[in-house]
Amino acid sequence: MKIFHLLPVILLGAVLTSCHNSDAAKEKDKSINTTASKSQWANGAQLVISVSMQFETGGQPEGAESPFSGSPLPKGQPDLPAESWYRYGANEGIYRMLDLWKKYDIKVTSHVVGTAAQKYPEVARAIAKGGHEIAAHGIAWDNQWNKSYADELTFVKDGVDVVEKITGQKAVGYNCNWLRRSPNTLKVLQELGFLYHIDDLSRDEPFVTNVNGKKFVVMPYTLRNNDIVQVAGNHWSPDQFLSQLKHEFDQLYAEGATKRRMMSISFHDRIGGTPAMVHAMEEFIKYTREKSNVMYMRKDDIAKMVINDPKTPLDNSEEQYNQ
Amino acid sequence: MKIFHLLPVILLGAVLTSCHNSDAAKEKDKSINTTASKSQWANGAQLVISVSMQFETGGQPEGAESPFSGSPLPKGQPDLPAESWYRYGANEGIYRMLDLWKKYDIKVTSHVVGTAAQKYPEVARAIAKGGHEIAAHGIAWDNQWNKSYADELTFVKDGVDVVEKITGQKAVGYNCNWLRRSPNTLKVLQELGFLYHIDDLSRDEPFVTNVNGKKFVVMPYTLRNNDIVQVAGNHWSPDQFLSQLKHEFDQLYAEGATKRRMMSISFHDRIGGTPAMVHAMEEFIKYTREKSNVMYMRKDDIAKMVINDPKTPLDNSEEQYNQ
Amino acid sequence: MKIFHLLPVILLGAVLTSCHNSDAAKEKDKSINTTASKSQWANGAQLVISVSMQFETGGQPEGAESPFSGSPLPKGQPDLPAESWYRYGANEGIYRMLDLWKKYDIKVTSHVVGTAAQKYPEVARAIAKGGHEIAAHGIAWDNQWNKSYADELTFVKDGVDVVEKITGQKAVGYNCNWLRRSPNTLKVLQELGFLYHIDDLSRDEPFVTNVNGKKFVVMPYTLRNNDIVQVAGNHWSPDQFLSQLKHEFDQLYAEGATKRRMMSISFHDRIGGTPAMVHAMEEFIKYTREKSNVMYMRKDDIAKMVINDPKTPLDNSEEQYNQ
Amino acid sequence: MKIFHLLPVILLGAVLTSCHNSDAAKEKDKSINTTASKSQWANGAQLVISVSMQFETGGQPEGAESPFSGSPLPKGQPDLPAESWYRYGANEGIYRMLDLWKKYDIKVTSHVVGTAAQKYPEVARAIAKGGHEIAAHGIAWDNQWNKSYADELTFVKDGVDVVEKITGQKAVGYNCNWLRRSPNTLKVLQELGFLYHIDDLSRDEPFVTNVNGKKFVVMPYTLRNNDIVQVAGNHWSPDQFLSQLKHEFDQLYAEGATKRRMMSISFHDRIGGTPAMVHAMEEFIKYTREKSNVMYMRKDDIAKMVINDPKTPLDNSEEQYNQ
Repeated sequence: MKIFHLLPVILLGAVLTSCHNSDAAKEKDKSINTTASKSQWANGAQLVISVSMQFETGGQPEGAESPFSGSPLPKGQPDLPAESWYRYGANEGIYRMLDLWKKYDIKVTSHVVGTAAQKYPEVARAIAKGGHEIAAHGIAWDNQWNKSYADELTFVKDGVDVVEKITGQKAVGYNCNWLRRSPNTLKVLQELGFLYHIDDLSRDEPFVTNVNGKKFVVMPYTLRNNDIVQVAGNHWSPDQFLSQLKHEFDQLYAEGATKRRMMSISFHDRIGGTPAMVHAMEEFIKYTREKSNVMYMRKDDIAKMVINDPKTPLDNSEEQYNQ
Repeated sequence: MKIFHLLPVILLGAVLTSCHNSDAAKEKDKSINTTASKSQWANGAQLVISVSMQFETGGQPEGAESPFSGSPLPKGQPDLPAESWYRYGANEGIYRMLDLWKKYDIKVTSHVVGTAAQKYPEVARAIAKGGHEIAAHGIAWDNQWNKSYADELTFVKDGVDVVEKITGQKAVGYNCNWLRRSPNTLKVLQELGFLYHIDDLSRDEPFVTNVNGKKFVVMPYTLRNNDIVQVAGNHWSPDQFLSQLKHEFDQLYAEGATKRRMMSISFHDRIGGTPAMVHAMEEFIKYTREKSNVMYMRKDDIAKMVINDPKTPLDNSEEQYNQ
Repeated sequence: MKIFHLLPVILLGAVLTSCHNSDAAKEKDKSINTTASKSQWANGAQLVISVSMQFETGGQPEGAESPFSGSPLPKGQPDLPAESWYRYGANEGIYRMLDLWKKYDIKVTSHVVGTAAQKYPEVARAIAKGGHEIAAHGIAWDNQWNKSYADELTFVKDGVDVVEKITGQKAVGYNCNWLRRSPNTLKVLQELGFLYHIDDLSRDEPFVTNVNGKKFVVMPYTLRNNDIVQVAGNHWSPDQFLSQLKHEFDQLYAEGATKRRMMSISFHDRIGGTPAMVHAMEEFIKYTREKSNVMYMRKDDIAKMVINDPKTPLDNSEEQYNQ
Repeated sequence: MKIFHLLPVILLGAVLTSCHNSDAAKEKDKSINTTASKSQWANGAQLVISVSMQFETGGQPEGAESPFSGSPLPKGQPDLPAESWYRYGANEGIYRMLDLWKKYDIKVTSHVVGTAAQKYPEVARAIAKGGHEIAAHGIAWDNQWNKSYADELTFVKDGVDVVEKITGQKAVGYNCNWLRRSPNTLKVLQELGFLYHIDDLSRDEPFVTNVNGKKFVVMPYTLRNNDIVQVAGNHWSPDQFLSQLKHEFDQLYAEGATKRRMMSISFHDRIGGTPAMVHAMEEFIKYTREKSNVMYMRKDDIAKMVINDPKTPLDNSEEQYNQ
């Protein structure tokens, strides 16, 4: 494990990383020098894993997606079991996940809906206090793709301000409702001082895109390792989710020997925060700890690490919108 | 196993508990004193598991959900295979589950639809005779969220009366059709002398809420460990259901070392009562018997145990409706 | 294995049974005397398994359910890949299953649509030649629940006649399209000399019901162990189907020690006849061969064995239609 | 492995085959002479496996199927996350699969949409450079079943020409959008000099059909081992897909001892090219390498090998359209 301490982590500013080697992995230590020297990441990682922990509960509009929304009640009629299903995210889900991250010393990125933090400020503060990144997710649980530039700017800024007041953290990363950006979103985010957004599925590594001629980081998000897609939407059982994570990890870790690779995982308060899902995630974390140079990181730290790294790809696929 | 006998079970009145330690678990006995003394439950449990066994067959309205209801027949045309599918619950399902509970000395809570008991009184009596709790589920298989206060009161009371006449047990626990309460439900239940309801998904432990200023117990129900949701609705195979149960158990049992934790499981006569599901459930029961201080309990016993316990959370999230 | 040879199989007329004990099972031989003497079946079985092998391909109407029917083409436009998907049942599916049954000396019941046999007479004959039961499934792939008594009688009789002419076997068992009988179906079947029907899901054993005052056998069918429901409809993978079969078998076999139990399995030419499903079924057969006194039987043989057995339940749940 | 070298591979012209025996399989070598001499394939294979790797990304029309298309945006509004999801196929998916095929020296058939190759010519060239077959998939991602003869001919020819200009390979194999041919498709393909098409699901081996009195090869395609059907459509997890492949392989390989058998697998750039799916596929390839005489082949090579082989079935099921 010597090589890791030789890495220029001090130069990385606020970058927090965690790297563990299990006993089993220690036998491979002799090859670590070689491996690490080939790393495509400034911190020597063979694979960077980043978890998004969405905190949205309390911000949901009437009739928001739930196990009950398939047969909606008439407008104005409270759907009490659906509301109780959402409260689970604030009562149990986030806290259970925070316990898991703490146990394994993992720092995650939490996308916080403004109205969720207003409804449950103690939950938002607990996330921040745990050393996790507070990222923005809009002032409300609402469509963003159909807003005017001015409305979108207000929508994003209000969310940042509200959450900063509660948590003390000013967001530099953004996640749109259902990933659906407007053509203006990146310009709006840049104007507000954001460093990166995550609503892109085109690569297994972060890249830089030019927005008004300046660098903006695009962080890969995931539908594949996403609890709301696979568990709430596609009705996967936890063992299926765990199997997906392991297959994805095995492949990306192997590729990480020669390419810069990042694995993105997404958990939502009321879905990923259930006992079975957290248990599956713990099994996955243990599984990844068998390998050396796997680093779980916050997305702001990743963004800072790659934005000026010449190895970071430049991709202007959406340049028509960003100038 | 000594510690269990030292527990103040006598003080718990009608509370029936079952606690078994497998041989494998016995090696852990040395730590049980410590564990039990840390229990958050009055009976020393590390985890309380409660099974709901819905008895609804015979009460279903025309066109009720079945494998055939996706392509409904014209009104008035009998859907004979669908009706035979329902009869399975009374012919086979409930009896098979009763055999399972008996084999492992588990007492469950059975939510009985009034018209189901009227159609199959011998089934309702067999449940009661097995030492299980007879809980209420309405006089009929019908929406409850859209009833007036008076109609809802009659709907609930008729169900209780009909089933009491057949089984000799007066229900103190309630479950609404598809969990969908009206804003008046808790007041109606309190007026009728109920002790608890289960149509809440917000916590992994029971809590108390104030209804007209008096304590009312809210027992956690489940969609996650629910045969009608996962097997009939989401088409899980039995191995998926078993895997879900094990993942959930492992997590909640671990948490139970320091928090009060309860696991809820739901089986319906015609779905959970099929051979493969009962077999999966038996495998789960055996799995839980490997651990010490896992207690399967009726929900009325749980409610009585927690209602005056100061460790029980007070949660008035719905107070706007309950005063 | 002595006890098996002592069973009065000779008295069972045309009843064909197969019973195998694996080496593993032989260790249990000492208890077989006891077990068999407790058998609820006249042939000493602890569990009877019966496979239905539907032969329908070639009889399907335009737009019949297929992987393509979700986005139908305009009427009259041939859906060529859908048609090729159906042809698979006649080209590969039935023959592959016949090879499997032959390898394990299993006789099944094949429900043959009249127009399918007309389109592929060589397939229908191959089934009959394999020693399998040719049962009726209507002259065409069409709704039966909405026909008049006279039309239904013609519909059933034409199917029997056409298939008898091709295969030499006159059907005594019936299966309706999607199990959906009319209220007259049992009377129609009785008038035509049928012995049993299978469109009932209410029990895990055959029973007798009175039709016009005479006994008629109702053979349990299955949606649980049914390829068209679980694989084509619910998109199960073969390992899920295999797991379902094993869970169901384990439970019913255990129950068979004290109750009469039957397990029903359904395979359709173009679905269950695919390589992965036949392979899964072979694994299941091997699994069942580990146990003693498991008998795979044709449904006509089962019907003959139970119709006059006093242990067979009498169930007149549908008597309003059958007099 | 001697027997393999004795096979008349030289006579097969451009036929490229790969055959590997694992150490485990070597113990079976003594029986290989027998096995191979019984082979139904000219190259001695016991089972031929052919992978289709669709390259379509960049050619998709607005609103094409994606995880977002279930709730479409208004016409003209760019669906940015959906577009980024598609770009994944060109950025990561194809290259990851090419690495896998190279690692195991497997040559596949790539069905290339003309506009995809125009958008990403470097991807199309990388496929061709890897020794894979460039097959046609239309000039655009569009319905083909509803085109006139003349329009269909242009649609197919434009696709061939565009892709040939980019890759240097002229397609001889065809795959329609969603397999949906018009009644004229085979005549169109023959007029353009094609050797085979794959939009048929009726057999587990290639066959010959007469088109205008001349032989045309029909290559079996698959919905069963198809990522877009099972993973994108039916939401299978990678372990389910892997299990399906293994069950199918085990059965077809066993049948291959006495019959000509072919296994078809389909991967699409943005679906099968994800890390978990490629990892699952690698596990499958390793699994098949345990057996002798398993050959992964391009479909053009298979077509050339079988077209004049008398053992190849002649099937004129669609002759009404092909004359």
